[in-house]
Amino acid sequence: MYIMKRKIKKIGVLTSGGDAPGMNVAIRSVVRTSIGAGLSIVGIEKGFRGGYDNSFIELNSRSVSGIINQGGTFLKTFRFPEFAEKTVRVKVYENLKKTEIDGLVVIGGDGSAKGAFKFSQDFDYPVVLIPASIDNDLYGTDYTVGFDTAVNTAVDAVDKIRDTATSHDRTFIVEVMGKEKGYFAIEVAVASGAEIAIVPEVVVDWNDVAETLKVQELMGKKSSIIILAEGAGKAQELASFLQDRFPNRQIRYSILGYIQRGGNPSYFTRVLATKLGSVAVEQLVLGKFPFMVGVKGSEVVYTHLKKVVSTSKLPDMEHLDLIRKMSI
Amino acid sequence: MYIMKRKIKKIGVLTSGGDAPGMNVAIRSVVRTSIGAGLSIVGIEKGFRGGYDNSFIELNSRSVSGIINQGGTFLKTFRFPEFAEKTVRVKVYENLKKTEIDGLVVIGGDGSAKGAFKFSQDFDYPVVLIPASIDNDLYGTDYTVGFDTAVNTAVDAVDKIRDTATSHDRTFIVEVMGKEKGYFAIEVAVASGAEIAIVPEVVVDWNDVAETLKVQELMGKKSSIIILAEGAGKAQELASFLQDRFPNRQIRYSILGYIQRGGNPSYFTRVLATKLGSVAVEQLVLGKFPFMVGVKGSEVVYTHLKKVVSTSKLPDMEHLDLIRKMSI
Amino acid sequence: MYIMKRKIKKIGVLTSGGDAPGMNVAIRSVVRTSIGAGLSIVGIEKGFRGGYDNSFIELNSRSVSGIINQGGTFLKTFRFPEFAEKTVRVKVYENLKKTEIDGLVVIGGDGSAKGAFKFSQDFDYPVVLIPASIDNDLYGTDYTVGFDTAVNTAVDAVDKIRDTATSHDRTFIVEVMGKEKGYFAIEVAVASGAEIAIVPEVVVDWNDVAETLKVQELMGKKSSIIILAEGAGKAQELASFLQDRFPNRQIRYSILGYIQRGGNPSYFTRVLATKLGSVAVEQLVLGKFPFMVGVKGSEVVYTHLKKVVSTSKLPDMEHLDLIRKMSI
Amino acid sequence: MYIMKRKIKKIGVLTSGGDAPGMNVAIRSVVRTSIGAGLSIVGIEKGFRGGYDNSFIELNSRSVSGIINQGGTFLKTFRFPEFAEKTVRVKVYENLKKTEIDGLVVIGGDGSAKGAFKFSQDFDYPVVLIPASIDNDLYGTDYTVGFDTAVNTAVDAVDKIRDTATSHDRTFIVEVMGKEKGYFAIEVAVASGAEIAIVPEVVVDWNDVAETLKVQELMGKKSSIIILAEGAGKAQELASFLQDRFPNRQIRYSILGYIQRGGNPSYFTRVLATKLGSVAVEQLVLGKFPFMVGVKGSEVVYTHLKKVVSTSKLPDMEHLDLIRKMSI
Repeated sequence: MYIMKRKIKKIGVLTSGGDAPGMNVAIRSVVRTSIGAGLSIVGIEKGFRGGYDNSFIELNSRSVSGIINQGGTFLKTFRFPEFAEKTVRVKVYENLKKTEIDGLVVIGGDGSAKGAFKFSQDFDYPVVLIPASIDNDLYGTDYTVGFDTAVNTAVDAVDKIRDTATSHDRTFIVEVMGKEKGYFAIEVAVASGAEIAIVPEVVVDWNDVAETLKVQELMGKKSSIIILAEGAGKAQELASFLQDRFPNRQIRYSILGYIQRGGNPSYFTRVLATKLGSVAVEQLVLGKFPFMVGVKGSEVVYTHLKKVVSTSKLPDMEHLDLIRKMSI
Repeated sequence: MYIMKRKIKKIGVLTSGGDAPGMNVAIRSVVRTSIGAGLSIVGIEKGFRGGYDNSFIELNSRSVSGIINQGGTFLKTFRFPEFAEKTVRVKVYENLKKTEIDGLVVIGGDGSAKGAFKFSQDFDYPVVLIPASIDNDLYGTDYTVGFDTAVNTAVDAVDKIRDTATSHDRTFIVEVMGKEKGYFAIEVAVASGAEIAIVPEVVVDWNDVAETLKVQELMGKKSSIIILAEGAGKAQELASFLQDRFPNRQIRYSILGYIQRGGNPSYFTRVLATKLGSVAVEQLVLGKFPFMVGVKGSEVVYTHLKKVVSTSKLPDMEHLDLIRKMSI
Repeated sequence: MYIMKRKIKKIGVLTSGGDAPGMNVAIRSVVRTSIGAGLSIVGIEKGFRGGYDNSFIELNSRSVSGIINQGGTFLKTFRFPEFAEKTVRVKVYENLKKTEIDGLVVIGGDGSAKGAFKFSQDFDYPVVLIPASIDNDLYGTDYTVGFDTAVNTAVDAVDKIRDTATSHDRTFIVEVMGKEKGYFAIEVAVASGAEIAIVPEVVVDWNDVAETLKVQELMGKKSSIIILAEGAGKAQELASFLQDRFPNRQIRYSILGYIQRGGNPSYFTRVLATKLGSVAVEQLVLGKFPFMVGVKGSEVVYTHLKKVVSTSKLPDMEHLDLIRKMSI
Repeated sequence: MYIMKRKIKKIGVLTSGGDAPGMNVAIRSVVRTSIGAGLSIVGIEKGFRGGYDNSFIELNSRSVSGIINQGGTFLKTFRFPEFAEKTVRVKVYENLKKTEIDGLVVIGGDGSAKGAFKFSQDFDYPVVLIPASIDNDLYGTDYTVGFDTAVNTAVDAVDKIRDTATSHDRTFIVEVMGKEKGYFAIEVAVASGAEIAIVPEVVVDWNDVAETLKVQELMGKKSSIIILAEGAGKAQELASFLQDRFPNRQIRYSILGYIQRGGNPSYFTRVLATKLGSVAVEQLVLGKFPFMVGVKGSEVVYTHLKKVVSTSKLPDMEHLDLIRKMSI
């Protein structure tokens, strides 16, 4: 990470990739910190796509009133694979120059980290990333903006499903977020008191799942919940596999899907988004880039985007162990 | 409906069919009203199945403490198709006799209504039904126990999905409860501000859905929500049909599934369950059977089970019209 | 109620008095129904005060996007006692005339009903009232917009307090909305499983409250909840009275206060607001005034404002009885 | 911290002091970890009081089924000042001996820490503390069990109050938990977007509060929220002070009170309680005492109870600064 002296007077802010609860809170913090520091602040709509299309809007303190409890992002977001092409990035760069935007705060997940890093490298352009993703899969921070909210939403849903599971003595497979990572699924499983969690990082033989259910049944468990990360298998297939093994049990499945993305941000998400939004602007002004702001415990930490995009974050394997210990 | 003079001293209560939020509240009311009236009260586990298996538990006022805010049913429920066989019903009747249970309060939906009616006819046995079902599909009551809670759960889920829909300018198809009836879907659609509702009672050409979306787009709507009752089509198929028509739009779908069944009962559900539980016992003691207790506005009404099982309830078509009016 | 033929081309809509959840939903429905009927629609800010101050804003379909799940009222509301003066009403009338507003939809409670009625009488001016109030204290409708949401909020709060009450074997007095009416308190009490409800309509000797607690204790109840309508006494005073009587018990109190006004409107509130907003406009155009739209069961009903302002609505005394029956 | 070799075969678990959401989850974890490790586990009702009164109950895995989403504590809790007397502690010790309980897991806040420490010192008795308190005021852990849930409850309440504040252009003072510490109030203020936070650790001249409001008004803020920790002043007094200064403003106040204690535990609280419950048992068995288990970031940390009871935890002053930055 290197420090450069260039005067930043106008900052652009955008949300990119999949939406996450708390993106609005992060924008609010970036906007108000910028205004408070005497900078101009411009919203770029639909992520980098808006940079390409010249969708810029001047923002002020009142532009972000009343959004602290709103899910989603009022600047809108977009998956913009074309940004991988150099010509597209050049166009975005030129538009930023024309608009006199001197630095960029990007709010997004790992795809956005890659785009932001490339863009910063191409043009030696000041960029800071605020990690926002319901997956919590970014290296360099204990938590991403949106994760705590999304897990709470999923846990709340599993609580409801457990009402039905218990009332009918059923076994439920609940498919949750997590195409490549099991962090989300593991946390949902611990918090919802699930009997089993299946995640992409750990290969699981479905016969072992059946065996575990059998043992738990002997211990007096009449209903059970299996949390399945979407990248670790199909709920429907696991359900029909288990139904074959246990013809007398009622096996059901549920796919939580998009409800996990939305909703009123939780306390933790709001404080995290506010804190990271504020330090992102402060560090950008100091000339520090390209990096991601994050937290380690209660400390703010900075990680070079090169490291962020090249390092994989592992789920908490001790929590997998906790699930096993609690399922007796 | 005829009145008989026979002395009821011990009542049995059971929950049957699909679980619904508020079943616990109805049990609580039946138990405490019975105790208050000097009757004995016995819980029958797993619906009629428990009558067959002799799963009886003596209940008292404290047995139902602390369950008013619990989803599901602590007496458990069961789908028991074998109850359609006369020999099975005879066994249940004999078990009730042996246990000296003089009358039955059945808490359940339309399947339970059929079983309860048949059972009452077979043995001239006192039975009252408390309508509990998230579908609100029983003739003879404005609302069933659980319906208000389930719609609130679904609306809350659609609110979350709308956050994502709006952030990405997407069209979402949300599949909700309703295999044969659209009542649930229509209410969810009005309350969530959905642009379109598709229900089993009204045949819809998907080309018309596409046409409606096109018109709404011209009016400035960038994202939209379509509520689809599960019995009116498959969300996945409609999504792929619409995606073909609108290649530049992002069409997504979500199936709410089992989360709609569980959860802390709402105010309305709790009051309804308490009121109906209480009058069910009072009327049973007066010798009135076989009937269903229900509400019409703020009045309690009674409907003979013959009428309940033979009459179809129609959804509120004016509400379908409301959806259209609001989607401009 | 008499029907007049005058051509209505532009409607004004305002929210007045205390805010209630669902006011935004009612505005949305009024606006879109008006637009759909080819009318112009103008928002008047801060209730009748905005009519006095010429705070008019043109509204269109997009003005009310994304507010169906927002508490409060974006048109703002105001208590405006000056509206009782004739000169003030004349000024408002003249401003409406100048702005070419031909009719008014007023969204509010009983104070607003009085103002709306007077205004309509003074100038033979077309006015319709949509009942919106968390108290549900308006004659002519089973439910007001906001009531269902507010009761759910209060019940949710009492559920939380019961966790503490049970953990400590405490008695809690919870003061809820209701200066003159006990409807709200009674519904909260039934739904939260409270042991006692005290309301303005029924004089209660606190010695009897103490006696009831003593009896319930003998029946095995170690903790209890008393719901007190704010107009029926002070929670603090009742707490200290009971503490004197039961020195070994832990008596606590909590005043729910303003949290009961806000929040995301419930399903029931949203559907009610949408339905009433729509029929209000339709009837106004037909020349029907001055009346209130309301519901009786699932039917829409109309009541002349003279009757609304002069008739008192009684709480459901059978529900008081239910509380007693359940508290054993 | 010293390690002793004594064989632990039976563990006692109790909850003590003010209740906090997640206490049930911690009990569940202690119970199941104990059973899994081959130990016997005994629940002690009403905290140390139950040790005095011989209120012991044998627990097994099924005893803690279905409580992961229940607020409060099923073992009940009690404030037991008599425990400060040596003779009382001796009696408790003898009862534990008689019951053959070899070690104690205490779930509670700072009062419980003091009692637990003294008890362990008196008899060289193995005791571990799981920090559970909605105040988050214990030295030795980033978070206590219950804190995250309670802040979410308070933030949710302030969101509702803001609906009313905005609809009426009002200023609201919201009094929240925190007799001696401002940690809770500060987090609520950041997360709810409050304009001002007043905490016990920082002396504030109310004239400065008035001044700040005046400045914010000039910047276009028409409504505002002031979060007041209960130990930093009386909401009612501040309200009347400000009303005198701003006769044209509508100043209101609300005291959140006991609702902050209860409720379904949040994801974060549940995972924390599960993790700490598990390591508490594991370390106790290893002979490590008397200490508190806690977290620093994602790491589990151990702090000697002497240090816990003698060190004060400071609130996050940078978060106070964040509130100021965001309130423009």
